[in-house]
Amino acid sequence: MILYGFFRSSASWRVRIALGLKGLPYETVSRRLRKGEQTSADHLAVNPQGLVPALDLGDGRVLTQSLAICEYLEETHPDPPLLPGDPYQRAKARAFAQVIACDTHPLQNLKVLQRVRALGHDEAQAKAWARTAIQEGLEACEVLADAPAGGFCFGAQPSLADLCLVPQLGNARRFGMDLRGWPRLLAVEAACNALPAFAAAAPENQPDAE
Amino acid sequence: MILYGFFRSSASWRVRIALGLKGLPYETVSRRLRKGEQTSADHLAVNPQGLVPALDLGDGRVLTQSLAICEYLEETHPDPPLLPGDPYQRAKARAFAQVIACDTHPLQNLKVLQRVRALGHDEAQAKAWARTAIQEGLEACEVLADAPAGGFCFGAQPSLADLCLVPQLGNARRFGMDLRGWPRLLAVEAACNALPAFAAAAPENQPDAE
Repeated sequence: MILYGFFRSSASWRVRIALGLKGLPYETVSRRLRKGEQTSADHLAVNPQGLVPALDLGDGRVLTQSLAICEYLEETHPDPPLLPGDPYQRAKARAFAQVIACDTHPLQNLKVLQRVRALGHDEAQAKAWARTAIQEGLEACEVLADAPAGGFCFGAQPSLADLCLVPQLGNARRFGMDLRGWPRLLAVEAACNALPAFAAAAPENQPDAE
Repeated sequence: MILYGFFRSSASWRVRIALGLKGLPYETVSRRLRKGEQTSADHLAVNPQGLVPALDLGDGRVLTQSLAICEYLEETHPDPPLLPGDPYQRAKARAFAQVIACDTHPLQNLKVLQRVRALGHDEAQAKAWARTAIQEGLEACEVLADAPAGGFCFGAQPSLADLCLVPQLGNARRFGMDLRGWPRLLAVEAACNALPAFAAAAPENQPDAE
């Protein structure tokens, strides 16, 4: 498989974690977002939406959207699972993932901050915009996580919730936020980062890290 | 079950379609978004994120996030299915749904447009912001849909993709956009609207329609 992504893209980071947890090997093709490579003709042929990540399954078929990719990996390689077994717990883990993937990250990504700047706002205002979105999202996550002691967001194994959480906390740090208001999320992050798949997926460990 | 929602909320609309397609009865509790009822103490006790929809399963357990709710309904009431059978097609349907639910709708909802106005921009600029997000999202959707003749986004049955598409096209109209550039999406919408579950879920047919 080939993962089209970028070391700092938190949606790519989610997929890297999922591939790692499932023990699936892949090659990386880097699309440097700040250089606009995600909207090159080459990349639009892979993903008409002009975004990363995109996963080539190895036969030319391409999947897009990080959570759809993760659900595909879950359905085709169910062990170890990325969702709890109980339908209600599965829904809670998916909802948590979507608080980040729908309501938080899309409001603070590069593209939207460029749009805020294009409206005439300076870097400080763009960063404040991002921090507001992250604050609201992670505040909700702190309440929504089950986060049992020593465990992950929803139980004793990492799920879609955790693989969204860790990159979002990374983004919060990049925007200079104080994370101490979310002790349960930080405890989950520590449990995640003790796992090799999370460590291997971190931005600083990618071949295209700058 | 009790659906906490709002007639015009497109995320609530998605869940109404899913409940209708599955043939599941529910009561509606309206949270009037423009009056801020979604951030009342009553509603925060239901959904700490302060958003609609939220679905009370009838026993006090509450699910949030429209796509997580739909996946729960799919797992607990599999017939008729809301996703194709093949994993690759399932991933394509989920990705299409996420183009709307992650990359389009969150950038044009009430909350974000209030934030754009709070930065000092007028109504015309807020609407232009919304239209840009919708334009980008639906342009990608027009390419991503399989949309066989007379069919739905991915095949002969409606899926998560269709139940995100129809409300998003509704939002595009509310923002005064010209939809003729997306003929395949309009054909899918016509197929959807011929189904009773889609008609029953439309905003104008809700008890809290204004």
